[in-house]
This record gives sequence, structure tokens and C-alpha cells, in this order.
Amino acid sequence: MAGEIVITVVGNLTDDPELRFIPSGVAVAHFTVASTPRVYDRESGEWKDAETLFLRCSVWRQEAEHVAQSLRRGTRVIAQGRLRQRTYETKEGERRTVVECEVDEIGPSLRFATAPVNKAPRTSVLAHAGAKSPAGDPFAQHDEGTQESEEPF
Amino acid sequence: MAGEIVITVVGNLTDDPELRFIPSGVAVAHFTVASTPRVYDRESGEWKDAETLFLRCSVWRQEAEHVAQSLRRGTRVIAQGRLRQRTYETKEGERRTVVECEVDEIGPSLRFATAPVNKAPRTSVLAHAGAKSPAGDPFAQHDEGTQESEEPF
Amino acid sequence: MAGEIVITVVGNLTDDPELRFIPSGVAVAHFTVASTPRVYDRESGEWKDAETLFLRCSVWRQEAEHVAQSLRRGTRVIAQGRLRQRTYETKEGERRTVVECEVDEIGPSLRFATAPVNKAPRTSVLAHAGAKSPAGDPFAQHDEGTQESEEPF
Amino acid sequence: MAGEIVITVVGNLTDDPELRFIPSGVAVAHFTVASTPRVYDRESGEWKDAETLFLRCSVWRQEAEHVAQSLRRGTRVIAQGRLRQRTYETKEGERRTVVECEVDEIGPSLRFATAPVNKAPRTSVLAHAGAKSPAGDPFAQHDEGTQESEEPF
Repeated sequence: MAGEIVITVVGNLTDDPELRFIPSGVAVAHFTVASTPRVYDRESGEWKDAETLFLRCSVWRQEAEHVAQSLRRGTRVIAQGRLRQRTYETKEGERRTVVECEVDEIGPSLRFATAPVNKAPRTSVLAHAGAKSPAGDPFAQHDEGTQESEEPF
Repeated sequence: MAGEIVITVVGNLTDDPELRFIPSGVAVAHFTVASTPRVYDRESGEWKDAETLFLRCSVWRQEAEHVAQSLRRGTRVIAQGRLRQRTYETKEGERRTVVECEVDEIGPSLRFATAPVNKAPRTSVLAHAGAKSPAGDPFAQHDEGTQESEEPF
Repeated sequence: MAGEIVITVVGNLTDDPELRFIPSGVAVAHFTVASTPRVYDRESGEWKDAETLFLRCSVWRQEAEHVAQSLRRGTRVIAQGRLRQRTYETKEGERRTVVECEVDEIGPSLRFATAPVNKAPRTSVLAHAGAKSPAGDPFAQHDEGTQESEEPF
Repeated sequence: MAGEIVITVVGNLTDDPELRFIPSGVAVAHFTVASTPRVYDRESGEWKDAETLFLRCSVWRQEAEHVAQSLRRGTRVIAQGRLRQRTYETKEGERRTVVECEVDEIGPSLRFATAPVNKAPRTSVLAHAGAKSPAGDPFAQHDEGTQESEEPF
């Protein structure tokens, strides 16, 4: 992919991640990140919260399972992904557009927490990657995830 | 700060983080992230490693301590920070310039690992923040760190 | 401001920019950028267009006037700004949320075009900056713009 | 390419761009962007210049020619590209490492200037793209440029 809008989001999960498996057996996790900037108010000389931005995110495959295992409602995360726009029709026949983020890389922030790391066994990758994917190549797997990204919504 | 070059780096630590305390008692951790892009080779139809970029990073205060407690040589991380250029003189009197990253937010990547999160007790923040810093305001604390950033190198 | 989501968008204007002046005399320009990623299709060995993302943008003060003077429907631009979420109520009383971009820096892309540069006279800055703003400091002016950002929508 | 460090730089050209053609006839332009952040000093209540970062950049093909035609020493630009590290040996046999930016998209900033846009005729693309490149596909052409990126230094 070339020309996508890549963003990095820092914020807190509004809820526990929801883990699902699409029919082909591939895992996907959905969650929302609430990101609140801080503004310096020159009058008072203090920092204050600015308006919160809520960004719906999805992440695929093994990383989706790790997200479901490691992150909870309230966890502060740092995530990098690609901005996506999705248009759907409401029951009333109205078209709505939402902006979402397809996450490539995410981790718990260490700003206010510790997070000891447990490396996942490689077999887990192979088990979920299926036959189509060149074994052991995370980016190839990820590209597949991209192609399937419209299925689970 | 306005107009800084903000970057997000994904890669592996080349070594355990080095934790130090500057004379005022503030913690700083240094580490290097090795970031290796993947290139798709159309001839062979395979993904291959491209040339690795090594980026020297620093992180301050409570987050520095959490980095030292949570990350190890080889850990894959996602980090966001600001690009810095530093010029120094060698023993031979030559001027050299290096590009470094002052990290604002970092976490272990969940792509190939799990990382259960332990929220740090708030007291730890206060203990290290010192008298000058408005208690409980992470960004105010962080800005102080920025001003001290040239001391520990 | 700290902790905002900073993005860089490359795409084409869907229409000529709309220039307005808020009651205090400050200029603001609105426009939409259509950003279409390119996907490499391994089956066919060709690059294809992926789904277009439309991002509503605003830009303030002198830069707004330059945008209105320099850019047209169809112009390819590169813009950096901060992601904003705005919630409003429809005539039917429904709450809707939109994601927009408050642009800090924008220019016409040189990928498929040339764009000879005419530096603006400094006096123009002062004329629009008003009394509150420290003369000649673009970022100070910009911060003012930020505070006024909800007025002109 | 996946996993590269993408950055957006705003700053001023330190000199006119240098345009060259590599033996295969492909154009490349080199230039340095000086990027100076602004820091708010709470003591004085004023914004001040922070330390300048100098980033060596390259841009390829038709865009290189447009850069050479449109930009001058001192022009403020906004550029997006990928961070690259290059190691070379000095005449004295010492190894040095420099960080550079391979620019994908660049334009003159409209913050302090206007820049009327002249769309380039399509023929110009074809003339320089050569036989290897799928005609009319800018990203395909660009990927070729990437492969040739070590030749012209």
C-alpha cells in the first residue's frame, strides 16, 4: 500500500477489547481509544484537558489475540495504524461515514505503568496464519489481513 | 513546543536500557532501537529485510524507570518522540552530528508478544517529580524533563 | 498543546477552498482533501486505487488567504495538521460526530506540478494579527487561531 | 515497503536544490531542510527558537525536476518521506553514519507565501520514466527510484 494516512494515537481504551474470529479462522480485535490532548492555558498558567477524540480501531491475527490478552478498559496505549473511512447505511436508509484506524502495531504505554513482556511462541503464528500465508512473514500475513478487513464489521 | 519533527519508531532494542539519575534526582533511560523495513521483491515474490536504521533514544522520569523495568535487549517496541540533532566535538577536535529521538511515549509491541499491564502507584510520580512540578500533571512534568535534556549526555 | 494526533495528508482538493472572515477579522479557509491510496495487486502485478478517504480541513489567518489564492479544485496538496472530532446536533435532534483536520502547514505538491513561490510581505501578517498577538510570531498567532476554531463552523 | 519510519518535515531550504541525472537518465534532486522548533518560555511569556535540525533530503524523477524549478534557498517547505541511514567511510578510513530523508511528496509552504500551481504535462512523465516503468503509475515509478537510490550519492 502506498499513499495511506498513517497515524499514531496515544490514549486509553474505553472498554475491554472485543475479540472475534472471522469464518476463515483469522482473529480480529476491536476497541476504541480515547485520546485527550492537554492545553496550556496562559491566563492561569496551568495545563487543562482539551476535547477528547474517540477513535475506533481494529487489529488482526496474532496481534489481535495478544491485545485481548494484555489490554483492558482504561489501559493507556500507543498505537500506529492507517486511517480508514467506512460508509454504511442506517436502518432508516441514511448514509453515514465513520473514520476508523486499522492498527499495525500497538503496545501498552509505559508512561504510568510497567508491562513485562512475554514473547509468544512461533507456533501460534503458524496455527492461525493458514495455508495462504508465507509462513513466518508478519507483513505478508498482515497484508492478507488488510484484504479481509471488510468482512468482520 | 511547536514545529518539532515527531516520529514513530517500531523496532527492537539492541541492548537492555541504561537507567541513570541526573544530579537533581530525575531518571533518564537511554537505548537504541533497530528498525528494519520489509521490502517486497517482485522478481521472487517474497518479502525481504531492507537496511536497518539504528536510532538512539532517551526517555525521562517515571517512564524511564518503567522502561528499565519492562524492556530488555531484543524487545520489540513502538515509540513516539521528537527528532533531535546534537553536535559534539571528538577528542581530536572534530565536530560530529548525531540524530536522536527524545521519546514521549513507548510500549512493548504486542505483535509477537503479550505484556500484562501493572499500573504504577501514583505516589511514585510524586516522589520523583520534585517541588517545581504541578503534582499529577504528566505533561507539565514532561516539559521540565525537556529543559533538562542536555544534562545527562 | 500536547498529546494531539498529528497527521499528514496527501490528496486532491475536491473543490476550491472557501475563504471566510470571522467577526474579529481573522481569515479561515475550509476545504476537503480526497486521499486515494494505491494498492499493489499481486495477482495482476499492477497498482490499483484503494478506497478514497475524504478529510474536511480548516486553516487560519494569513495561511488561509494564501490557500485561497494558490489552490484550486483538483490541486494535489500535502498538509500537516491535528485531528479533531466535532459533535453536532442535526435538525432532527440527532447527535453526529465528524473527524476533521486543523491544518498547520500546507502546500501544493510538486509531484505532478510546478509552483513558483512568492513570499508574502510581512505587513500582511500584522494587518490581520490584531492587537492581542505578539507581532511576527507565527506560532503565537496560530495558538490564537486554535482558540477561535469553533466559531466559524 | 513496510515498516519504514515516515516523517514530515517543515523548514527552510539551506540552499538551492541540486539537480542531477543518473546514467539511466533519471533525475534526482538533493537539498537540506533546516527545521527550527519554537519553544514557549514561561518565565518571559515569549516564544523563542529552539535548536535547528538540518536534514539532508533527496527526491526522484519528475518531482526532482519540479523541485529544482520551483524551490530556492530559503523557501519554506513541507515534505514527507522516509528516514534512511547511510554509512560511509572517510578518506581516513573512519566509518560515519548519516541520517537522511528520501522524500515522497514535497511542496512550498503557504504559511508565509503564495504559490500558484502549474500542472505538468503528462508527456514529461513518460519521457523520463523509461521503458522499465509501467507508464502513468507514479508509485510504481517511485519504487524504481527507491532501488536506484544509492547510485547518485
